[in-house]
Amino acid sequence: MPDRRGLTFIIGGARSGKSAHAETLVTASPSPWAYIATAEAYDDEMRERIALHRARRGEGWATVDAPLDLAAAIEALPDHQPVLIDCLTLWLTNHMLAERDLDAECRRLVDVLSRPRGPWFVVSNEVGLGIVPDNALARRFRDAAGRLNQQVAAVANTVLLMVAGLPLKVK
Amino acid sequence: MPDRRGLTFIIGGARSGKSAHAETLVTASPSPWAYIATAEAYDDEMRERIALHRARRGEGWATVDAPLDLAAAIEALPDHQPVLIDCLTLWLTNHMLAERDLDAECRRLVDVLSRPRGPWFVVSNEVGLGIVPDNALARRFRDAAGRLNQQVAAVANTVLLMVAGLPLKVK
Amino acid sequence: MPDRRGLTFIIGGARSGKSAHAETLVTASPSPWAYIATAEAYDDEMRERIALHRARRGEGWATVDAPLDLAAAIEALPDHQPVLIDCLTLWLTNHMLAERDLDAECRRLVDVLSRPRGPWFVVSNEVGLGIVPDNALARRFRDAAGRLNQQVAAVANTVLLMVAGLPLKVK
Repeated sequence: MPDRRGLTFIIGGARSGKSAHAETLVTASPSPWAYIATAEAYDDEMRERIALHRARRGEGWATVDAPLDLAAAIEALPDHQPVLIDCLTLWLTNHMLAERDLDAECRRLVDVLSRPRGPWFVVSNEVGLGIVPDNALARRFRDAAGRLNQQVAAVANTVLLMVAGLPLKVK
Repeated sequence: MPDRRGLTFIIGGARSGKSAHAETLVTASPSPWAYIATAEAYDDEMRERIALHRARRGEGWATVDAPLDLAAAIEALPDHQPVLIDCLTLWLTNHMLAERDLDAECRRLVDVLSRPRGPWFVVSNEVGLGIVPDNALARRFRDAAGRLNQQVAAVANTVLLMVAGLPLKVK
Repeated sequence: MPDRRGLTFIIGGARSGKSAHAETLVTASPSPWAYIATAEAYDDEMRERIALHRARRGEGWATVDAPLDLAAAIEALPDHQPVLIDCLTLWLTNHMLAERDLDAECRRLVDVLSRPRGPWFVVSNEVGLGIVPDNALARRFRDAAGRLNQQVAAVANTVLLMVAGLPLKVK
């Protein structure tokens, strides 16, 4: 049984089962469940992924799109609402493309996440365990993602690393 | 002592000691041991790697090459035979290059692995923890590898993540 | 409380909090603390990183630069000196650029690290969990880093994998 109030941070690689595991955890609380999606369907590959995730979730979910104003979308949640926020790395990508002030946006998001008002579940990608990327933008993204992941993990009650669909408890 | 019958899944990054650890686990059972190799020596780098692995294993091993028809090679094993299957990501690469039906092949493989008839050890690479690759083929491979790893982990009795030569128990 | 004498190996991805965590562990022993830096400031990005790390460490640290002759720098440490060696992957990069004999240098380093004369903390990057790199040099680096990490982990008393700023005990 997840905490009534508390932040669970689910981090992992691509296709590590982060979203599916997070959905299982959220739906252990009674519905209705909120799904805050940060993905923007800017190409076919992404459209397909979004459609697959949506089909898997099925009934009982209210979807909110928040590609940029994620902190506001979380603040608008009612108390006690179980929520899946999926995912922080796409949100970061959207902010980098929009050339927003990353540090300020991350501070605001972490501040909101540090005061959970229900069972909150946040998904993010770990992207720092490969070879240093060739291009400076990818390195900047990797640095920003790593820093944000650290900040969120620091305020989370539970941190899970997904490995081949299985959760490994880190905190 | 490994399970008499059971599937152990050893996952990790490049040079994380997956094969060496798997060999140690297999050889805890009495020989003869089977080594099912999926590698194809299509260039010098790969030829060198195959030769190194083979030299390290030494006596007591019967090597079977199964770059594509891995499920059939596993089905042909006698009962109680300790086996090391090394590795799933190369097998996946071979299938992508051969333009086979990946989903069908993966289903068949996972089905065979879900009914171990001896101490079976399967090695695979985790490739999803770096930056999103630039090219679509690499992304397709990464997705396929992640999905297959999840499916195998789901039917495995034991799942180990190798970190710098050391096993971290995930399941 | 860290071991009076012993090697702690801290491995993780980019921006996973390796250095910050290692500093916390070192400073649990009484100062003065040694910081053996392998970084060379060959571009602005690196200069900025070095300056940030130095500012965070603050007072009480004696910094030694050892971009290449790391084993000698470690051998020159007084007994009982708490030390942070940061990091092995940059040291390896420097050796590859200098076209030194990697195997011999790694053997010498691991030999020195295997006989800690105080609370010694070594930081390294895990770089093998992404897609196979396109270029041969990156693959060679990845292989060398993986092998070195395994060798150091084998002689370490404690091995920690950093995930989003949190240590996961591997050994």
